[in-house]
Amino acid sequence: MRLLLNFLKQPFDYQNLDTLGGETQEDWFLKITPMGKIPCLVLDTGETLIESNAILWRLAQGTKWWPHELSIQTKVLSWLFWEQYSHEPALAVARSWKLYRGWDRQRTQEFKKLINKSYEALKILEMQLTYSDWLATDQPTIADIGLYPYTALANEAGLDLDAYPYVQAWLKRVEQLPNYKILES
Amino acid sequence: MRLLLNFLKQPFDYQNLDTLGGETQEDWFLKITPMGKIPCLVLDTGETLIESNAILWRLAQGTKWWPHELSIQTKVLSWLFWEQYSHEPALAVARSWKLYRGWDRQRTQEFKKLINKSYEALKILEMQLTYSDWLATDQPTIADIGLYPYTALANEAGLDLDAYPYVQAWLKRVEQLPNYKILES
Repeated sequence: MRLLLNFLKQPFDYQNLDTLGGETQEDWFLKITPMGKIPCLVLDTGETLIESNAILWRLAQGTKWWPHELSIQTKVLSWLFWEQYSHEPALAVARSWKLYRGWDRQRTQEFKKLINKSYEALKILEMQLTYSDWLATDQPTIADIGLYPYTALANEAGLDLDAYPYVQAWLKRVEQLPNYKILES
Repeated sequence: MRLLLNFLKQPFDYQNLDTLGGETQEDWFLKITPMGKIPCLVLDTGETLIESNAILWRLAQGTKWWPHELSIQTKVLSWLFWEQYSHEPALAVARSWKLYRGWDRQRTQEFKKLINKSYEALKILEMQLTYSDWLATDQPTIADIGLYPYTALANEAGLDLDAYPYVQAWLKRVEQLPNYKILES
């Protein structure tokens, strides 16, 4: 979301909430979004957007990040739904266990499964990026933006990208796009 | 997908693949979709669609199932992304463990977590349906279609919907829509 906002040169205020510390369950936040989940974006109109990939989709409307062609749009969404089911629950959760929860050492069997599932997801990305520079078409779309963050942070999950040279090259391509800014966690 | 195709009165051929038996990893299927995952829809044009919710989105274009208003479209997608991350990995996986794998008796702790996560998802649905008949707006959309199947099959996952009367009423509303057909697994 912040990545796309930077690419679009849209100014925004950013607030980091401590989910483990319960900040997303506080009354003021539940008034903004009853589900109490981040990310959440409040537009200047007052409209509240939730779910990271729905936010990406909305922000991309009318921009090159959401190409016109229906078949490409469908592919973009396929990648974004895949991200939610097969990528984030592996890479983002493994990273959270390792960085914040210490569960990589306490729940070793489950952590191992997360790592295996992460490599399965990386294999799928590698397979696609072996024959195309970007995930959905010949230019970057919100599919690339949605898949970038937790792939770029793979090392923090204890993952090794050495066997995924096409994924590494794609990460660099994203980082070389105009207005790319490194994100702080 | 079949639910929406029926609502749209679009004829289709249906083939049931045995995922546990490895049919989705056979060469002929990987030629259609290299990811080897179901569901997968091949259009008359030869275009192949994957990811259940991306297929719903594509089929709904130009129909009342994908309303015109941007803010409603965004809500529809929020629900569909939520379905992939927070609903299906709980309800559909719990059902699969119980019906096909016997893991509900072998991995009791993990199964308990799936059940808890399923009830968390049902609570979110109940919260929304307490004050609206349909998930994203005042008429049914592909958000309702995407969330319907595994919610309707909750009992097969060992879940009890007694405490979720608004979810039950919504399931009945879906079933009373014109051209609704009961789906065989």
